[in-house]
Amino acid sequence: MLSYPIFGLRNKYLEDAEDDFLYHFGIGIKTVDIPKVFGDTKFVCTGGSPTRLKLYAEWFSKECGLECSENLSKSDRFVLYKTGKVVWANHGMGTPSLSIMLIEMLKLMHHAEAEDVKFIRLGTSGGVGVEPGTVVVTTNAMNGELTDKYVQWIAGKKVERETWLDGDLRKELVAIAAGKEIPVETGLTLCADDFYEGQMRLDGFFCEYKSDEKFDFLKKIYEKGVRNIEMESTCFASMTYRAGVKAAIVCVALLNRMKGDQVKIEHDQYIEFEERPFRLVTALIRRQLGY
Amino acid sequence: MLSYPIFGLRNKYLEDAEDDFLYHFGIGIKTVDIPKVFGDTKFVCTGGSPTRLKLYAEWFSKECGLECSENLSKSDRFVLYKTGKVVWANHGMGTPSLSIMLIEMLKLMHHAEAEDVKFIRLGTSGGVGVEPGTVVVTTNAMNGELTDKYVQWIAGKKVERETWLDGDLRKELVAIAAGKEIPVETGLTLCADDFYEGQMRLDGFFCEYKSDEKFDFLKKIYEKGVRNIEMESTCFASMTYRAGVKAAIVCVALLNRMKGDQVKIEHDQYIEFEERPFRLVTALIRRQLGY
Repeated sequence: MLSYPIFGLRNKYLEDAEDDFLYHFGIGIKTVDIPKVFGDTKFVCTGGSPTRLKLYAEWFSKECGLECSENLSKSDRFVLYKTGKVVWANHGMGTPSLSIMLIEMLKLMHHAEAEDVKFIRLGTSGGVGVEPGTVVVTTNAMNGELTDKYVQWIAGKKVERETWLDGDLRKELVAIAAGKEIPVETGLTLCADDFYEGQMRLDGFFCEYKSDEKFDFLKKIYEKGVRNIEMESTCFASMTYRAGVKAAIVCVALLNRMKGDQVKIEHDQYIEFEERPFRLVTALIRRQLGY
Repeated sequence: MLSYPIFGLRNKYLEDAEDDFLYHFGIGIKTVDIPKVFGDTKFVCTGGSPTRLKLYAEWFSKECGLECSENLSKSDRFVLYKTGKVVWANHGMGTPSLSIMLIEMLKLMHHAEAEDVKFIRLGTSGGVGVEPGTVVVTTNAMNGELTDKYVQWIAGKKVERETWLDGDLRKELVAIAAGKEIPVETGLTLCADDFYEGQMRLDGFFCEYKSDEKFDFLKKIYEKGVRNIEMESTCFASMTYRAGVKAAIVCVALLNRMKGDQVKIEHDQYIEFEERPFRLVTALIRRQLGY
């Protein structure tokens, strides 16, 4: 069993840098008083969609009677909101996009001298043998090779990084779900690098496998303990662990991939499903921060 | 030398489907008259940033005296504009995000029964031994393993796809650049899966290599013919080729990575640099379509 290292910058070149501009947030240490604005941060909440994360920030602001900042990002690549000690940012789709947001968010927390910050990803996903609306709290991430590593290519060489998520956060989230009657499961999350062939959908532009092979694959990963598929978990579980920030992944399943490939839910139902990870995670945050 | 196959759907399951919803554009064959709206498309122009692609569509609309559509995407994942026979959509950052946009765009062109459509990516990049402002027209893409393949993981197995870009489009773009006095180079484009370690930047949160190793790597890829680094080229050059649509990649270098890692250009200069791929590509489009 792994344990978290202490949070801190892992780059000696940046220690001496006179300037640091977080390009994809459009802000830098010379343009914003980062310790003043972000120094009290205790939670970073993230997910793919920019409007969903904005909505989450506004909901949280209302529920807790906290002011919601304007969009603090000066770039159109990601949005960035703050409500009290909670930061909200989106990360786009896929591990490359997420990795950019995470690196710049970790640098932001470093420059802010924030302490004991926890990172939570609130996402949507395809369920594997779980019904639409189920919230999956990830035990660990699995990559396309079906191993629990985050793969990077650096200087032409393959580097495999450990993945790890915090057990205490997971247990608390599951306990809260029970109290709120939100259907919850824990399990592995498969992190695919595309939405169609990498997830063996039959509705892409290309399809070289047969329907039987799709179901065999879903059955195989179900038996390995996978309960949902998305596109960011390995990077999220690896970079947070490596940096020393406790993390959790909480994704609602929009469909059961054992039964189809297209998301077919009504708009109102969709909104209610999207709300579930928010209700779960914000209950935990409010309890931990006394909001 | 490869040659393009004929454009057409490569998925027998979709041929018989009664419905098809392009989830990340938020439109489907039952919600929009796709042949009517998109049937005359001849060019699909794409790039990472949503506001840049909107701006490009608006500029093109003004210059050609063509109406610019409203945002035809009903999802916040990607924007989608149309000006005459030209479609503009953004693709986010990294190959996973691009792959989603491309698959749904190819399905859109299939449903629209559009013919002889060309795809062009207009992007920003880090130059390798080329000065900021240089427009690199990609000869072919290289992945993090330093091979010219797009790597997918399907059913737990590694699949390597060919990459290919159209030589005629490239030659025409280079010829146009000469006439417009836009600095242009052709060369390989390295497609990285992250912005920091995968591109050997020294300004990330993590850095386990030395400055010397970074410069050795940049020198090594320069000698292999690489002139810029971005995060989408392998997927773009592979999926378009596989689908049978001619394609080109035209990226401006915002910095010379041989000289630094942070983008340090003034706002006005940035706008002018961003305009260069647009000026080049739209000159080609106007010539080919007689606009």
